Amino acid sequence: MAKSKSSGLTSSVKDRDARTLSKIKDLADGVAKAALGGKEPRFEIPTRTRSNTNWNKKKGILEMGDATSERLLFNLNQAKQFMQTCLHSSSIKDLIEVEKTLSLRGMFYKGLHTVAGTKEKTFADQAESDGILEDLEVSLGALREELHIFAKKKGTMIGNITIIDSGDEIDCRKMGSGGYSIPSIVEPDVMQFKKCEAKFVLHVEKDTVWGRFNEDKFWQKHNCILTEGGGQPSRGVRRLLQRLNSELGLPIYCLLDCDPWGHYIFSVIKQGSISLAFESNRLAIPQAKFIGVRSKDFTACGLSEDVQIALNDNDIKRAKEIAAYPWFAHHKGWQKEIQGLLDNGFKMEVEAMINKGISYVTEEYVPARLKAKDWLD
Amino acid sequence: MAKSKSSGLTSSVKDRDARTLSKIKDLADGVAKAALGGKEPRFEIPTRTRSNTNWNKKKGILEMGDATSERLLFNLNQAKQFMQTCLHSSSIKDLIEVEKTLSLRGMFYKGLHTVAGTKEKTFADQAESDGILEDLEVSLGALREELHIFAKKKGTMIGNITIIDSGDEIDCRKMGSGGYSIPSIVEPDVMQFKKCEAKFVLHVEKDTVWGRFNEDKFWQKHNCILTEGGGQPSRGVRRLLQRLNSELGLPIYCLLDCDPWGHYIFSVIKQGSISLAFESNRLAIPQAKFIGVRSKDFTACGLSEDVQIALNDNDIKRAKEIAAYPWFAHHKGWQKEIQGLLDNGFKMEVEAMINKGISYVTEEYVPARLKAKDWLD
Repeated sequence: MAKSKSSGLTSSVKDRDARTLSKIKDLADGVAKAALGGKEPRFEIPTRTRSNTNWNKKKGILEMGDATSERLLFNLNQAKQFMQTCLHSSSIKDLIEVEKTLSLRGMFYKGLHTVAGTKEKTFADQAESDGILEDLEVSLGALREELHIFAKKKGTMIGNITIIDSGDEIDCRKMGSGGYSIPSIVEPDVMQFKKCEAKFVLHVEKDTVWGRFNEDKFWQKHNCILTEGGGQPSRGVRRLLQRLNSELGLPIYCLLDCDPWGHYIFSVIKQGSISLAFESNRLAIPQAKFIGVRSKDFTACGLSEDVQIALNDNDIKRAKEIAAYPWFAHHKGWQKEIQGLLDNGFKMEVEAMINKGISYVTEEYVPARLKAKDWLD
Repeated sequence: MAKSKSSGLTSSVKDRDARTLSKIKDLADGVAKAALGGKEPRFEIPTRTRSNTNWNKKKGILEMGDATSERLLFNLNQAKQFMQTCLHSSSIKDLIEVEKTLSLRGMFYKGLHTVAGTKEKTFADQAESDGILEDLEVSLGALREELHIFAKKKGTMIGNITIIDSGDEIDCRKMGSGGYSIPSIVEPDVMQFKKCEAKFVLHVEKDTVWGRFNEDKFWQKHNCILTEGGGQPSRGVRRLLQRLNSELGLPIYCLLDCDPWGHYIFSVIKQGSISLAFESNRLAIPQAKFIGVRSKDFTACGLSEDVQIALNDNDIKRAKEIAAYPWFAHHKGWQKEIQGLLDNGFKMEVEAMINKGISYVTEEYVPARLKAKDWLD
């Protein structure tokens, strides 16, 4: 990508920013036009609810439906949100123009002030601000990254790949014990894949498990990339996995806990989530595989009873909810898996494998599952 | 450091491991000797409590006192802890012998089993296991790292320094937007400093603030290293800052929120904490400086009222507790600072500076404070 001398931005970023600015201008023009024409200014906001989320069986992802709701200026219940939308649109315009990004918390502070002549604050709290930003993403059809907004950073990567991040070449084969910290924004204009020998990605739930795999040089021995998401992976981590899958064709194998939380993490990685359904095309990985931990492993691996963590009422409720997800409901393997969890009556963490030996999970468990292609898709 | 061909470990690590093994052996020998001699086996465990923590004014750090408590095998209240101590000692011996490390959670699982012939588990939960490991650290006089145990990874680094981590050379000047993820173990045998032009370290509380400084290339413009600790920094982050300070002579400037939590984080970075007082020599940085946010900044920087977050009862209680810490109690600057916070009646986050402009904190606030040497030590 050619760097532009004047601004330090690549031309593709400039194009993208110009497009986003033009969308914001259209939004503002619509308001001005209505006002000048004696009509009530309004925004049309796509609805981000469960009822407006559809399961696209063919694509294998969750998608947002067509339902929208109006946000009117002259409506007591909507006027505040209308003004908040204008305020954040204006902040985003500022950010794009000065070529900077801001955190979600920063956006809250940037927009925060007392409305002139009142004691009313523009935002009650950050949650209110975050919601308006998600509304703007869907209304403008521009991703958070395109709005120059970033979230908390989470997750780490290491393995047989070289990437370019903001112009810096980063060899993920030489990242010591710490690893490369996955940023919040991993779009192609910020991050490019330079050289990749890896044949697959192993994504694990927790950084401590990642540490075990890194120390045992799993990624060298099995020629792969090793990532962790610190629990539920952030949008940055999910997008990176999705790009590794769709652009480089790497299979994504997930090693998560055998509990409803682990199943939910997998579901989000694979199909997307309700709140971010408008992003599924960019985030969901329908081909992702769940390599473990499986409910059968207690017996199959000969674990001791000590690793059992009893299911509580909430776990049982969650397990049943997840079993009813459309993409799991007709999937024999997943029905059996979740039933197995319920029949067991206990959860198991990935760390439970330590019961069999410090490196059992890296040297025996995962290699055996990969070899036997024993996973859930 | 010369790599040993047979094991892949450097000779200094081998020496260290041999020392730790010998300490564990001594511990076990003591038990065996007592038993064979018809005496009751017992461990002597240094006491990790507030009453056994002393403020060493001269060194400027918290230290552990000489008080110890006994752990007896033939005492109903202590037998379990006695056996847990033996169990973890044995696990650590295993780890050292196979040259591997394990997470705190992993150690819990490794030691977890049902005591033969009973329904009693060796550990009720991980907290119980973690406590025994801290006891072992102080009893053996060996740090967690020397026991081959690591914690959750936290924190990121970027800036004008090249390090070696586990044999990999890592140029922290070329880490893109993500940065180098600081590992849990940063001892000299794992991490060496290779080339450092940086003149100081700026440590910020949150990764989102770190993102702002990194994007604005603060570390390039001001020739420094930029770190974040994700809130209260982990032992790994604290140890890294302490090594950068003591070995490379770099001043450590901390940019934290103007609230009791920010003050507490600074106190821990500077003087150490009660629970880890036995580690203060290795973790505390008596020369650390608090560069902001200061209670005077609301007026000094001309911030709007919107950035004020009202102090609640707990904040006020915490502020008074912190003001009474021996190292703050006789420090005029800190007394004034904490009184200023109480007089204000509100907290301010670092993000509050966005009120003045997106890059105000990186382009004006911190540079001005550094230039004027306006900080609290």
